[in-house]
Amino acid sequence: MRILGDLASGNCLKVKYTADRLGLSYDWAAVDILKGESRTPEFLALNPMGQVPVLVLDDGRAISQSNAILQYLSEGTDLAPGDAFDRAKVAEWLFWEQYSHEPYIAVCRFHMVYRRQPKETRESWRVERGEAALDAMDRALADRTFLVGASLTIADIALVAYTRMAGQGGFDLAARPALSSWIARCEAELNLDPVPA
Amino acid sequence: MRILGDLASGNCLKVKYTADRLGLSYDWAAVDILKGESRTPEFLALNPMGQVPVLVLDDGRAISQSNAILQYLSEGTDLAPGDAFDRAKVAEWLFWEQYSHEPYIAVCRFHMVYRRQPKETRESWRVERGEAALDAMDRALADRTFLVGASLTIADIALVAYTRMAGQGGFDLAARPALSSWIARCEAELNLDPVPA
Repeated sequence: MRILGDLASGNCLKVKYTADRLGLSYDWAAVDILKGESRTPEFLALNPMGQVPVLVLDDGRAISQSNAILQYLSEGTDLAPGDAFDRAKVAEWLFWEQYSHEPYIAVCRFHMVYRRQPKETRESWRVERGEAALDAMDRALADRTFLVGASLTIADIALVAYTRMAGQGGFDLAARPALSSWIARCEAELNLDPVPA
Repeated sequence: MRILGDLASGNCLKVKYTADRLGLSYDWAAVDILKGESRTPEFLALNPMGQVPVLVLDDGRAISQSNAILQYLSEGTDLAPGDAFDRAKVAEWLFWEQYSHEPYIAVCRFHMVYRRQPKETRESWRVERGEAALDAMDRALADRTFLVGASLTIADIALVAYTRMAGQGGFDLAARPALSSWIARCEAELNLDPVPA
């Protein structure tokens, strides 16, 4: 199989982390969004929405949307709970991530890292909602090792991808101890070096 | 089981449409978000994120996030494909809906219907992305009866909930014939009266 993505994008890294953790073999095809490489006719034939990542199966069929790919790859593995209720709680985190976390945490990081804008020029409503998202995670993790159940699932992978890089978007992770410990646990499980502050 | 929701919210209606289609019996508990009813201690005990809808199982355990509830309720039914790839394509639409459709289509409707603001005062970037989302659906449906496979799935239910009300947010559905026919097909399947223009 083939993964089309950008290693600077948390949405793409989620897929890489999951495939690596599961020991899947794949080719990584680098797509530079900023150069318009997700808008070429070849790319749009795989994903008409023009978004990375895209998973291309060996028969040529393609799946897009990072968290849909995570659900697909993890089915029947120890990264997805066997129990239907627990699986629903994992899905709850996945949808929450895309609606209530990524648009704030990832977009603020994009603003500072890619547009090279100062922290003070982030949109205030995004900052506010990003802070609220990190607080909600910190509270949820106060008495839990991982987001759902006792071991790492795709919920952790989906959430940690951008959360561990939140500092690059001007958010303070050190002020949130439960969140910081969970990030360290996820990084240990995924063999990732900590993100430089 | 019990569904906590607001019948004016497409995210809540999705869950109602799915439960009704599957012939599930449930109690509907009305939650008025505008009156702060999703911020009470009782509500936050069920969903710390303070969002509707919430599905409460008979044993008291709760699931939130509309599309996570749809995945949970449809598992093993004819609203979810049996094939893993098709199930991934359904999930692709569900995640796309929450990230690339709801924040534009539903938020513009909220602005006009709940805040009673005129069409001209919608945020232009939201209008632009909402138009793009409807165009993408219209193109995708040009040669398809339903979004995934040959019959109605939770992808159609998740997308049609806000799409059929897009006119209330200032979007023009009549200009998109494939989209309009699909809405009519979904409404027929779900026994819904068309939304007044």
